[in-house]
Amino acid sequence: MTDDETAVVAAPEPAEDGGGVGVVCPQDFVSREPFRFDGGAEIPEFTLRYETYGDLNAARSNAIFICHALSGDHHCAGRNAPEDRKPGWWDQIIGPGRPFDTKKYFVICANCLGGCRGSTGPSSPNPRTGRRYNLDFPALTIRDMVRAHARLVEHLGVKSLAAVVGGSMGGMMALQWAIDFPEKVRGVIALATTARQSAQAIAFNAVGRSAIMQDPAWNQGDYPPEAGPNVGLAVARMMAHITYLSNKSLDSKFGRARREPAAAPAGDTPGHFAVEFEVESYLQHQGQSFVNRFDANTYLYFTKALDRFDLHGPNERLEEAFKAMTARALVVGFTSDWLFPTEQSQEIAQAMLRTGRRATFAEVTSDLGHDSFLLNSPELYALVRAFLAAEKG
Amino acid sequence: MTDDETAVVAAPEPAEDGGGVGVVCPQDFVSREPFRFDGGAEIPEFTLRYETYGDLNAARSNAIFICHALSGDHHCAGRNAPEDRKPGWWDQIIGPGRPFDTKKYFVICANCLGGCRGSTGPSSPNPRTGRRYNLDFPALTIRDMVRAHARLVEHLGVKSLAAVVGGSMGGMMALQWAIDFPEKVRGVIALATTARQSAQAIAFNAVGRSAIMQDPAWNQGDYPPEAGPNVGLAVARMMAHITYLSNKSLDSKFGRARREPAAAPAGDTPGHFAVEFEVESYLQHQGQSFVNRFDANTYLYFTKALDRFDLHGPNERLEEAFKAMTARALVVGFTSDWLFPTEQSQEIAQAMLRTGRRATFAEVTSDLGHDSFLLNSPELYALVRAFLAAEKG
Repeated sequence: MTDDETAVVAAPEPAEDGGGVGVVCPQDFVSREPFRFDGGAEIPEFTLRYETYGDLNAARSNAIFICHALSGDHHCAGRNAPEDRKPGWWDQIIGPGRPFDTKKYFVICANCLGGCRGSTGPSSPNPRTGRRYNLDFPALTIRDMVRAHARLVEHLGVKSLAAVVGGSMGGMMALQWAIDFPEKVRGVIALATTARQSAQAIAFNAVGRSAIMQDPAWNQGDYPPEAGPNVGLAVARMMAHITYLSNKSLDSKFGRARREPAAAPAGDTPGHFAVEFEVESYLQHQGQSFVNRFDANTYLYFTKALDRFDLHGPNERLEEAFKAMTARALVVGFTSDWLFPTEQSQEIAQAMLRTGRRATFAEVTSDLGHDSFLLNSPELYALVRAFLAAEKG
Repeated sequence: MTDDETAVVAAPEPAEDGGGVGVVCPQDFVSREPFRFDGGAEIPEFTLRYETYGDLNAARSNAIFICHALSGDHHCAGRNAPEDRKPGWWDQIIGPGRPFDTKKYFVICANCLGGCRGSTGPSSPNPRTGRRYNLDFPALTIRDMVRAHARLVEHLGVKSLAAVVGGSMGGMMALQWAIDFPEKVRGVIALATTARQSAQAIAFNAVGRSAIMQDPAWNQGDYPPEAGPNVGLAVARMMAHITYLSNKSLDSKFGRARREPAAAPAGDTPGHFAVEFEVESYLQHQGQSFVNRFDANTYLYFTKALDRFDLHGPNERLEEAFKAMTARALVVGFTSDWLFPTEQSQEIAQAMLRTGRRATFAEVTSDLGHDSFLLNSPELYALVRAFLAAEKG
């Protein structure tokens, strides 16, 4: 996910709407029941940090659950304080009159289990030892993340979800929601995602993990909060960030432009190999700002969950995954997404259709690569509005 | 360049030909004249390690010079000892009866200036200090590499080159040869290359350099031979290697196949994040074997030379670059090459044509990505044979 401080294309505040959701406070849900992971391990309790926008209706049927991507979090709309420079990561799509219209819907977003932005994850204290979990945190799957979120949805009194929505890793979670909780999910919107990653996508994740795990500061995952494997995490992020954009968007934003020498940041390597091109400077900024807000072990757990996610299952029959699903589905791919190419979205929708589900595949034309789903896209917004409106029809 | 020990598709030994060039001995050319780099710095002398195959004719006009890619070297054909398990990196295209037919041509290949395989580079002793150059080695350009090679060609008594040939970085050098030494070059064969790298290609190189330079063992380039930044170099290589292959070739070779647990190599990280998929294991092998044969500082110098190479020049007019060129040109792109897409090859040929040069663009269909030029390709071989034969016509 693009660090939107320096997004390739900034989403303009829509002029015609009544502004966003305003100031919102994140909340914590603490589940005191033990949680059993797919792998069999248990933790005695967990916390999920979340935000909500809009109000739950009397029928408790107007909720929309938003699943964030690998580097996202619960703060997807509004500002946590009036002075915040930027709103949440998906602000342009959530709010009064926006596609996820908070005048009609109760929108929920929670940091995933395993995360590092307030939800319980490897950097959280293990209540059994008092020390950080680090690698004592159990192996994590997309299903685990969804099952934890389902407890929050239950806690919030939601009877059924009008939609579960997400892009990239969030799209995997949205699909898994519809599969594992068919009675809870009436609609699924899966964006820029895949039923399982290609060898190339696994390869990129593997290199990122190598960069982290080979950083001496990683120390087999056992590092203090203030001294993690920042070097490895920054390299992993820089590389991954290239895969979130397109060749064309990088060329049109940066091309081969040189950086002004005066702009050299502190700590820049002098001499022959100093940062020279704007695109290098941009990536270094991405790497550094990521280190300031993300935990390296969470990066390992999340990328491993991505790599292992495979809806094709042992029988290599994707349609079997969707047998239990009852939700309507909108599956959207973006033409310039080379990490999860549109064929992978189409494959999902076709497998749903073969199983008799109500599914639509849409291909949105965009030059902005995998991150297109995060950026301003009137075409996507129209699809989302129409999909939500169609439930009544 | 693929480490051909584990190439995605191994090149079969052609059955119909008379075998390769046999056992060849690398030789050293020592130029005792000072060498002035594009950047203005000088070194008092340099060595180039090279190999030759076939014999120079009486007219001294039948030489072909082969330029290697980023991770290649002078050893492109035959074996250096009868017991060598594998021949040189381009063996299948060089030899009696092969496209670069050593019954007709005198084929030369030399490790580049700045290299680490016998030619003078950052890991060589600086004659002025007796210590390794490391970052005292001057900033290096593609033109510098070509100018150094031109001294070798002069030394070998070659009057003019029937062709200069190369893929990727070698293709840049081949183009630069034709531009800077028009009186010496009658033909240029540029494969899987570009007149200048895209922002994305620069970005990948920048991440690789970050991985190396942030490895504490890099130590601002001042490391002893036995203790270089192996971790960073391996990560850089793993990432770059993904860009040399295609999504399709990775999927067909590895897909999502799991590795046998018993195959865990020494030093593998145990627990949640152990190597799990075959593609991870393959990349780790690529990273490790690269560390054993390559110098990290050379990697920095070469990638920087790649990034700065720009035949479009300050006027943004590619055709101006080819004004001085007199050579015939064959420019070949490979359909699945996403690092240097075929449009970039086509652009080169079209700029040559606009300047009135004799140029051909050919697109070879291949699923094997950027490394296609290194792998067995009857279509490429036919193009090369025809191009060389056409000189007589």
